Amino acid sequence: MNKIVGIAASPGIAIARAFILKETDYSVSNTAVADKEAEVSRLDDAVSKAEAELQVIRDRVLGELGEQQAEIFESHLLLVSDPELIDPVKEMIKEKALNAAYALQEVSAQLIEMFQNMKSDYLKERASDMRDVTRRILKHLLGVPNTNPAEIGEDVIVIAEDLTPSDTAQLNRQYVKGFATNIGGRTSHSAIMARSLEIPAVVGTKQVLQEASDGDWVIVNGLDGEVILNPTDETIAAYRHKQADYERQRAEWRAFRTKTTISADGKQVELAANIGSPADVGAVLENGGEGIGLYRTEFLFMDSDRMPSEEAQYDAYRSVLESMKGKPVVVRTLDIGGDKELPYLELPKEMNPFLGFRAVRLCLERQHLFRTQLRALLRASVHGQLRIMFPMIATLDEYRKAKAVLLEEKAKLQLEGIPVAEELQIGIMIEVPAAALLADQFAKETDFFSIGTNDLIQYTMAADRMNEQVAYLYQPYHPAILRLIKMVIDAAHREGRWVGMCGEMAGDPQAIPLLLGLGLDEFSMSASSILPARSQISRLSAASMQRLAAQALELGTEEEVAALVQSVYLTQKHPQ
Amino acid sequence: MNKIVGIAASPGIAIARAFILKETDYSVSNTAVADKEAEVSRLDDAVSKAEAELQVIRDRVLGELGEQQAEIFESHLLLVSDPELIDPVKEMIKEKALNAAYALQEVSAQLIEMFQNMKSDYLKERASDMRDVTRRILKHLLGVPNTNPAEIGEDVIVIAEDLTPSDTAQLNRQYVKGFATNIGGRTSHSAIMARSLEIPAVVGTKQVLQEASDGDWVIVNGLDGEVILNPTDETIAAYRHKQADYERQRAEWRAFRTKTTISADGKQVELAANIGSPADVGAVLENGGEGIGLYRTEFLFMDSDRMPSEEAQYDAYRSVLESMKGKPVVVRTLDIGGDKELPYLELPKEMNPFLGFRAVRLCLERQHLFRTQLRALLRASVHGQLRIMFPMIATLDEYRKAKAVLLEEKAKLQLEGIPVAEELQIGIMIEVPAAALLADQFAKETDFFSIGTNDLIQYTMAADRMNEQVAYLYQPYHPAILRLIKMVIDAAHREGRWVGMCGEMAGDPQAIPLLLGLGLDEFSMSASSILPARSQISRLSAASMQRLAAQALELGTEEEVAALVQSVYLTQKHPQ
Repeated sequence: MNKIVGIAASPGIAIARAFILKETDYSVSNTAVADKEAEVSRLDDAVSKAEAELQVIRDRVLGELGEQQAEIFESHLLLVSDPELIDPVKEMIKEKALNAAYALQEVSAQLIEMFQNMKSDYLKERASDMRDVTRRILKHLLGVPNTNPAEIGEDVIVIAEDLTPSDTAQLNRQYVKGFATNIGGRTSHSAIMARSLEIPAVVGTKQVLQEASDGDWVIVNGLDGEVILNPTDETIAAYRHKQADYERQRAEWRAFRTKTTISADGKQVELAANIGSPADVGAVLENGGEGIGLYRTEFLFMDSDRMPSEEAQYDAYRSVLESMKGKPVVVRTLDIGGDKELPYLELPKEMNPFLGFRAVRLCLERQHLFRTQLRALLRASVHGQLRIMFPMIATLDEYRKAKAVLLEEKAKLQLEGIPVAEELQIGIMIEVPAAALLADQFAKETDFFSIGTNDLIQYTMAADRMNEQVAYLYQPYHPAILRLIKMVIDAAHREGRWVGMCGEMAGDPQAIPLLLGLGLDEFSMSASSILPARSQISRLSAASMQRLAAQALELGTEEEVAALVQSVYLTQKHPQ
Repeated sequence: MNKIVGIAASPGIAIARAFILKETDYSVSNTAVADKEAEVSRLDDAVSKAEAELQVIRDRVLGELGEQQAEIFESHLLLVSDPELIDPVKEMIKEKALNAAYALQEVSAQLIEMFQNMKSDYLKERASDMRDVTRRILKHLLGVPNTNPAEIGEDVIVIAEDLTPSDTAQLNRQYVKGFATNIGGRTSHSAIMARSLEIPAVVGTKQVLQEASDGDWVIVNGLDGEVILNPTDETIAAYRHKQADYERQRAEWRAFRTKTTISADGKQVELAANIGSPADVGAVLENGGEGIGLYRTEFLFMDSDRMPSEEAQYDAYRSVLESMKGKPVVVRTLDIGGDKELPYLELPKEMNPFLGFRAVRLCLERQHLFRTQLRALLRASVHGQLRIMFPMIATLDEYRKAKAVLLEEKAKLQLEGIPVAEELQIGIMIEVPAAALLADQFAKETDFFSIGTNDLIQYTMAADRMNEQVAYLYQPYHPAILRLIKMVIDAAHREGRWVGMCGEMAGDPQAIPLLLGLGLDEFSMSASSILPARSQISRLSAASMQRLAAQALELGTEEEVAALVQSVYLTQKHPQ
């Protein structure tokens, strides 16, 4: 028996035999060809086969997994016949009499390097698409046999160095019970795919591929991030038990899908989801989300090398609003700057970008950007229940200016005869300590608050949350943070406003008892956390949690708060 | 009449005729010399003359202005005969038959470039010393006549592109009534020198040298930052009046030198000074400082290319404590990181240094650094009334750890039989919002707080105070800031602790009424602000200011606060 520790990438427990997915040998030699024309034909032929294969996969994924997952194969299809890739390969064959496989590898390597040096994360990721597509063409050029996991005919756990999008998409869901890889993290492609396929996965083990052999018994524990090779019978029995517990737990959570969120003593709150694009809405509805608490619009701006048009934005906003069928959708206006760059905006390099020219600060100066987004939002507002919020508001002046711009654009649209929703809540993110401290003043002029804990914590503790050397100061349960949250909620309630939270804290099972006790109205989290949270809240008494929170506010350290929550309420682990 | 606007660098009004201090022509030609030995002798001779000249200046400055001002000429003396400068010049003469002036200029230019590329600000400033010394030697090599302002025999206003330390030190205080320059800012050498000479100065006018002629009548208005060339008789009369008002004002301030600081209704507070080195203590005592509210020890570490020894630190701390003769001296432990780099510590490059690994965060990890400083402080503690405070404290844990290290070092010293003061107050800077929000908890375990407004404001507003694009968010009178200050003061007073403030706000005449009203116990500021502040407080009613502050806390914007202060209390301008 051999226990290997890795990163828990997708929850659940799988027990089956190992299927080793080896890296195919694509080594290519630099040999010349006699008949250049024939070699070019061979290339065309390989490209056509790869293209046909991709179409089949794309269609299957579309049917089984939906639009979002199929998108990646759409881009592979565009890439596989892209003249920017294929033309230079043909030229190399013709000019230097190189064999097609070698020429393809050369050209592809150059393009991959170019993509990797791009500033945008989006374009960097194109490097992995290029690698995947190149391999697919090479496979046909070299006549490498398919070690296709789609052909697996019995229950297995797939073990690999890493899984490409093509690999994971071809996994046969019927037989593949889990997977374990050497590399990758919680946000790597394979991890995301595993969660959407709902199969347990452990990634980043560094060694599972070296240590496992085909046919070994394997336990993948995606709850705790461990892989057990050749377990004893007792271990298998213990994990079967654990597996059953987890399945029961999951079934219980599923039962909460269509329920409202009510505490044991009858207090109702709202559980919403954070999304980054229209493609994420499916998961929100599947997980019983009561709304979108945070639609991060910046991805629309980052996934492109220029500013998205008003039309493109309108389409995205409308799609989300329509899919949510009248449930509230809180859209955050552009939150760019800080760690999120937009090369085409040509922003100045800053000493401290987190304390710099970002979000609403930037929008109020580059008003063209801001006004285009607001127009698109206002036009979309008739298709659902839109709520607009401004990020990084520090002063009343900023809020008043941003709201004035919004009302101007609304008036312009009405003059043009374009319909705009009559009721439209306007709120702010509370993520700058100054805004939290002045919440009573803001509450007089806004419809709602959404507390952005990620930034609020980093400013209140004066510690960059991306900087490992001060990571110990990122303390969500620090009494100073709880006091700010309390201040914000009390101030809003006095003016009859509602308060949401869209930072990571809102979905954290350790934080939920405290937040319920502090009086939070809306919790916005990743879609997969909604059902566990609803289940958790159904067992909590809001009145007891209020007493718990009051005690926590008088403590001195985060450790003491954590101990208090533990002592009063034994939290349950649940997957993210 | 011609009014030119510049930067008010030193307060007061001067009216006299212009003395144009032109840049001497040091242009040098690349001609060869026949007799190399004779040229080397000429160089030695010029160096000796420059050295003799510098000794005379050094002695005069020492007598007239004191040790601190003379220091710069000490370093010029070291530089003028430094083999690193002179030896390569001699080699160039011998090897290439170059003339001495040309060779000197070449070598000096290289050294200046090297200094300018240094990371440390201290070493960068050595470039200007090198320039000054090079000119002094060149003057003798080229036989340029002395346009020595020391030879001025009537009242003048010196007008120049810029003034080097040599230029300003040679000004004859009897006749030089003020000066105006084209370049420089409030912290340039010439501005600092003008303030210590107590002559009015306006710098950074960009054009005064081009527009003024020798013998023109000039008014230098160092209160408002303007220079008037060829004023009319009415203008001269008006400014003589203004001058008299200011002199009266200054005399009134001087009368407060030996007084305690008491409001009109009898509330006593303490006015202390911020210093960076023992050399600053003279000005504190001259201006009637009741203590040192902030001794920034990092300059001791930055003025060197390695860590100062325990002995060197002990000498500095002891010197300050002794000079203050029992008045309290609050020493802040090393606040390095952020915008203050120490090349020899080899700190990691950070994305957001202001939110990074700095001050006490760094000291708790690099304990050798911290312990050495604490030992030096504890040893010095018997020579006066030492108080120690830790910067950038965010959590109780950090404070407890820092205090534990201090007590460990104290116990070690006592074991070694080295005397340590029995009473030693230990406090913290309040500059991280989390610490302000949790002040009630900190007050139970600390002896005092000192509010560092510069950082507290930038974190609370989430805006880098060095970043021009978000400079509008650096709002000291923002109600959120005032609320935090109030929270801190109230929490401390409930536990019987005192609260000081050592940010720029403490010396600001617009802020003083509010701070008095909020109950601040100690105001620490630049030495030159102490007497105006004491005079201002003597005219204020603490009870009325308390009502004023209570109103300000309920306002929504900084503008409204400023308007309130203006309406209730007409503030008076005073020099920094």
